[in-house]
Amino acid sequence: MRTKLHAPTAVAWMVMAFCPMVWAKPVPQISQADIIKNSAPGDWRRLDPENTVVMEINGQAVIMELAPRFAPKHAANIRTLTREGYYTGSAVVRVQDNYVTQWADPADDEKEKEKLKPLGTALAELPAEFSIPFKGLPITKFTDPDGWAPVSGFVDGMPVAADPGKNKAWLAHCYGVVGAARGTKPDSSNGTSLYAINGQAPRALDLNITVVGRIVKGMEVLSSMPRGPGPMGFYDKPDAYIPITRARMLADIPATEQPNIEIMRTDTVTWRNLVETSRHAIGGWAVRSALHSNICNRSVPTRPIP
Amino acid sequence: MRTKLHAPTAVAWMVMAFCPMVWAKPVPQISQADIIKNSAPGDWRRLDPENTVVMEINGQAVIMELAPRFAPKHAANIRTLTREGYYTGSAVVRVQDNYVTQWADPADDEKEKEKLKPLGTALAELPAEFSIPFKGLPITKFTDPDGWAPVSGFVDGMPVAADPGKNKAWLAHCYGVVGAARGTKPDSSNGTSLYAINGQAPRALDLNITVVGRIVKGMEVLSSMPRGPGPMGFYDKPDAYIPITRARMLADIPATEQPNIEIMRTDTVTWRNLVETSRHAIGGWAVRSALHSNICNRSVPTRPIP
Repeated sequence: MRTKLHAPTAVAWMVMAFCPMVWAKPVPQISQADIIKNSAPGDWRRLDPENTVVMEINGQAVIMELAPRFAPKHAANIRTLTREGYYTGSAVVRVQDNYVTQWADPADDEKEKEKLKPLGTALAELPAEFSIPFKGLPITKFTDPDGWAPVSGFVDGMPVAADPGKNKAWLAHCYGVVGAARGTKPDSSNGTSLYAINGQAPRALDLNITVVGRIVKGMEVLSSMPRGPGPMGFYDKPDAYIPITRARMLADIPATEQPNIEIMRTDTVTWRNLVETSRHAIGGWAVRSALHSNICNRSVPTRPIP
Repeated sequence: MRTKLHAPTAVAWMVMAFCPMVWAKPVPQISQADIIKNSAPGDWRRLDPENTVVMEINGQAVIMELAPRFAPKHAANIRTLTREGYYTGSAVVRVQDNYVTQWADPADDEKEKEKLKPLGTALAELPAEFSIPFKGLPITKFTDPDGWAPVSGFVDGMPVAADPGKNKAWLAHCYGVVGAARGTKPDSSNGTSLYAINGQAPRALDLNITVVGRIVKGMEVLSSMPRGPGPMGFYDKPDAYIPITRARMLADIPATEQPNIEIMRTDTVTWRNLVETSRHAIGGWAVRSALHSNICNRSVPTRPIP
């Protein structure tokens, strides 16, 4: 790398005085794949066992990590619902193309009140958890403008947008992000019906609904399901429902059965390098660098535990 | 509407003098659904029969409109390939989650040179058609920043990004947009292998590959297919290929068999109103307006011909 940098001229020093990024950011010479390959063990973490739900759908694992920092009451309720068997036997009831895949109690979708699954010790009502204070949030910021918010970046492996002027931060509706469906009342979600984004990030949903986490593995199971007929994508016949055959907290799965997965940390130099590298065309194929990156275009790498 | 506007105060006049948008843009009071319902017949157009390919896949119609203004040589080649039966019997050979669904000659994917479909009178080599001049382009601009480009908007129903300083405009890789797969050489595409974006817009592909058009109907057929194993999503077994049972130019389909569809024009006040309305929370559900819109979040409405 050293040999790529030339001694700055007087003009270049002036430019750098005004634009320190010029000096701080030489163009990366290494691909994203190599950054991942060269990463240190400390660049990775295990999924949080008390905040990870492992669902089995169509014989495949769909793994959701919760975001208790952003939606603590919803995370706690989803934990309870998982442990008390609520989601086991629930089903995907809606797949709307380029929008959401949604799962719920089929009886709720069919408005069969007498067949509703019992909530057990989970709460029926929760406050809306649309945003948290920005101040003090350990965010790894993106340098490029987001468009939808003044600040964007990652916190705890989740895509986050923020408005420091209003001291607000919130989870962004990127691909694979999971929210808690609600009715007309802002505080009418309780985690019994959840949706994952399966297309272009519908960021206009941000701050309008409680986001609870993100599918970190198995999103392709949810995104490749048949779209439901009709404009909102609900399956019109109960036999179209795709059952969640089992849902367990990662902490409750015997060690030998746990999915063999770890996830990259998003509070490291390695992650920053990965994001910066994504702004540049590197390798033989691309001819033009976008010089731009967006939180919804960056997925957090996972890998088998080495 | 008149009664919503109050006589401006002296201060308001000063604000309006500096910010004419305040005066020009009262907050919309009508939903997108109502704008579509109240649209005039002239707000709609038929698909261009000489630039529309109708594919049949899994018994469903997948309709692609070509963009001859942006990629005239690729559009002409695709027209020839369609008319000479190249795509009929081709197949979807790759579905990579949150990226692309790609179709091609299966023999090409299998590297079986002796079984390759004949090109007929189509050209094997075409120039790269990555961008066109911006000057004079009849673009309906978006007012919000795009992030990936200085200017964005719609032309001929297609999402477009542009850099006026470089006098360049190009089709943006939004959901449903179709590009011509290429090898390492920028001019190695000829339309025999095409891909449609099936997830978050991978805008870093912009200006790196020739974009040829957009799926205007039936994208859910391509987006809900099983993902291929492996990191690039290619189907590893030929029996996984999903055949294109027939592909015809709209102009060559008997009138009685033509899909009953028209599409909204994107060079009208109605379209501008639809985009502006998308920036605002209207109706009972949403509690917060994003005050932002992005070309890749706006789909162009279609409807049955009235």
